[in-house]
Parts: sequence; C-alpha cells; structure tokens
Amino acid sequence: MSKKTKVNAAILIIGNEILSGRTQDTNTSTLALWLNSIGVKVQEVKVIPDVEETIVNSVNLLRKQYDYVFTTGGIGPTHDDITAESISKAFNLKYEMHKEGYKLLEKYYKPGEFNEGRQKMIWMPKNAKLILNPSSGAPGFIVENVFSLPGVPSILKSMLGGLKNKIFGGTPIISHTINLRTVESEIAKSLTSVQNKNKDVEIGSYPFFRAGKLGVSIVVRSENQSKIDTCNSKILEFVLQKKIKIIKDN
Amino acid sequence: MSKKTKVNAAILIIGNEILSGRTQDTNTSTLALWLNSIGVKVQEVKVIPDVEETIVNSVNLLRKQYDYVFTTGGIGPTHDDITAESISKAFNLKYEMHKEGYKLLEKYYKPGEFNEGRQKMIWMPKNAKLILNPSSGAPGFIVENVFSLPGVPSILKSMLGGLKNKIFGGTPIISHTINLRTVESEIAKSLTSVQNKNKDVEIGSYPFFRAGKLGVSIVVRSENQSKIDTCNSKILEFVLQKKIKIIKDN
Repeated sequence: MSKKTKVNAAILIIGNEILSGRTQDTNTSTLALWLNSIGVKVQEVKVIPDVEETIVNSVNLLRKQYDYVFTTGGIGPTHDDITAESISKAFNLKYEMHKEGYKLLEKYYKPGEFNEGRQKMIWMPKNAKLILNPSSGAPGFIVENVFSLPGVPSILKSMLGGLKNKIFGGTPIISHTINLRTVESEIAKSLTSVQNKNKDVEIGSYPFFRAGKLGVSIVVRSENQSKIDTCNSKILEFVLQKKIKIIKDN
Repeated sequence: MSKKTKVNAAILIIGNEILSGRTQDTNTSTLALWLNSIGVKVQEVKVIPDVEETIVNSVNLLRKQYDYVFTTGGIGPTHDDITAESISKAFNLKYEMHKEGYKLLEKYYKPGEFNEGRQKMIWMPKNAKLILNPSSGAPGFIVENVFSLPGVPSILKSMLGGLKNKIFGGTPIISHTINLRTVESEIAKSLTSVQNKNKDVEIGSYPFFRAGKLGVSIVVRSENQSKIDTCNSKILEFVLQKKIKIIKDN
C-alpha cells in the first residue's frame, strides 16, 4: 500500500454537557495535537447532542468525507450513553455483546462486580475491533474508519498510545511559532506579503493578552521544513526592520 | 410577535489554531452558558478552518437550520481573517467599508493610529449591524440571524452584554446538579428508570475523577422547575436507598 501524503480526520464530540456549556471540551485539543504528530490533520470538529438520529447522520456524513473519524463520549453504562448503539445503526450492523470485550472486563473486575451496568459497556457494533483502555477497563471500539473513544479526558488520553499502529498518517505537519510584542495591525501588511509569496504554507496570526500585555503569535505550518525556514527568515526580516521585540518564552 | 418557547442556536468556530490543537477553544462554553441563561439552547458546534468555501457553506447551512448562528474568530486585521468577506459571500452582499464602523474606530484610535490594517476590521457585509466592542474597539457584526464575534475569549466575553436586546430567547432552561461519590454502573439502572418515567426531562450522567477520587455528576435539565424537582426527589430516593454519599461542594 503506497503511503498517502495527506491524511485527514474529523472529530465528533457527542454530549449535551458540552453543548450546554457545563463541561469544557479538552479532547479536541488532545486529539488534534496527537493526530498532528502522526501526520493526520483534523479538518472539522462537530459537537452534537446525545440524540440517536443526529449521531447516525453525522457519523455517516463524516466517515465518507474524511480518512478517519474520532468520536468522543457516550460509551459509558448509563441511559444517555448511546454512541455504540447509534454507530451500529449508522453502519447497519447488529448491536450486540462483544465476546472478547466480555472476557476482558470479566477479568478486569473483581468477582461479582461485573454487573449489568458494566456489561452495557461491551455492547457494540458486531465485529467491532477493540481499543484497549489501560485506565478504567471498558474499551473503545473501531468500525472501519470510525474510532469511538470515551469522553473523560484522562481516560481518552491513556488510550491513544494503543492506537498508533491502527492509524496510518501522512507526512507530519511541522509548525513553528514566533511570539512578538506587537499588535496585529502593525504587521498585517508585511505578513500578507510573506503569505502571498508562499501560498502553500499556512501562516496564522493570533493576538494574545497575557500578564497585562498584548502580543501576537505567528504560526507557520507546513509539511516541509525548508519552506517553514524561508517564511521564518522573511518574517524576522520585517520584525527587525520594524524594531518589534521577540518574546522568548511564551 | 408571539414569543417562541424553544429557541436554538449553532456556534461556528472559525480557526486553524483550534483544529491544530494549538489553541484550546473556550468560547463554546462561554457562549453556551450565556445563551442558556437567556433561553437559547445550543444544538450544534462546528469548528472549521480559515477556508472561504468552507465558511460560506457552513454559514449557509447553519443559518437555515437554527434560529441563531454565532461565529467566532477571523475578524482581525491579518490575511487569515476572512470571516467578514466570507459571510458577505454567503449572503450575496457587497463586502465594503462600514461607514458607522469607520467613524467609531476613527474616534477610538489616536490620530495617525487608524492605519490600513485596522481599517480592514471595518470591512463588512453591506448594511451589517454593528456589535460594539468595549475592550478593543473593533466591532463585530450582525447579518440577519448570524452574529460574528472575535476569537479572543476576553474580548468576546466583553461584547455579550451588548447583545441582550438583539436576541430573543425562549423559556430559559433550568438545570440542577447532584454530585455523588459513586460510579456510573452503580446507579445506571435506577437512573434509567427515572429517565423513562420523565421522558421530557434531560437527565445526564457524567463521571469525574478529581483529587484522586471517582464521582458522578447527575444533571437534570428542563424548562420546568417542578419537573426537575420530581426527578430530583426520585434520584435522591435511590441514592439514599443505596447509601451513596452526596458531595456538597464540587
């Protein structure tokens, strides 16, 4: 199989608690940084409620549009955890008890503790592949290009290591950040000219306000280190010319 | 105009920096909590890159699907700030300098400081209504049911107060949280039975891990306080029966 150079992904955050604002999502950032590091670029994130029809439609749309889809949330033991059943419907697969998963949790829990609630967590789409969970037992699962992970950030994080050989990334995207003590309007014109001369490099400009002071982070992203270097030197050129201070630690 | 009881919204986060994982979005939670408090329920959040076609298509899809759409990001002075121009295209409106906005910023900046970069920030869809910005001058804008706000969290927050009389919410959603020292599997069955008997109330169960201890937050949400009270008492009933500890401060 020849390696694709550009591999993309979508993240589907399933959970009323994110939409209500009660819970601050942090899984997007965790997943995106990790995916970037293995050469997968996140192109879209969608947050949806715990509603079966919405999950089914979103999964079916995203899995055709992107190389990989990662869902987070909704795979616990309670009534509002409907991700596994919804994904079964999306793929038109039977929703059933996963034999390997059953054996796994039977060993994980003390005798008598593997109760009905916990057994719900190994009901999955037929023939799903398991994603092992080193922190709390209950596995995630994979159907084709859709990877279902839990919503609890620490548990999600602990499961990523086990996915490395299941995801085939492209050329990793490298990024370089320059932090400046300036305001965006001061550098906008010069930066536009660097971007226009380097159209295949992604140059982002992000104002920040920290410790009572304004600043701008310029982020240059590309698969190609030498292209990043070219842009960096052009940026440093106008920074020096304008006598803008570079902030070392940020 | 008769008041709608249910009013919904979508949030469109525009920015490569969120998709790359470099920046942790916090605007979703800020907006969702604030919208909830004025009776608007967020039904979908989408994060997309700084790509014109994607912005145009997403805005046009969401504005037809939801009562309100809030965009964040991409309204600054640099080349990667393309929200205003993209929204002009979405509505098929001319992208032009906003006269009222020009006067506003002319007064805001010191003589000579209202440079080309800053002037870009008042290029908007023709006849857009302004959203005043008490922290950094440059306004957001409204076209029909689409509200465009900046990406910097502190600035976005400062602009919400000025939107109150421009958004017509429905009946506010009330929520009540009970924090328990237990695991989800312990209460799953009892909670399902409460949910099944109260189908029009939204009951969520969210495991957490804090200070080395596991717990579960049960969140009951409805427009109707007495329905919340009913569910709460049913939940407390099984909590007492199971001798589960209630955590007071969380």
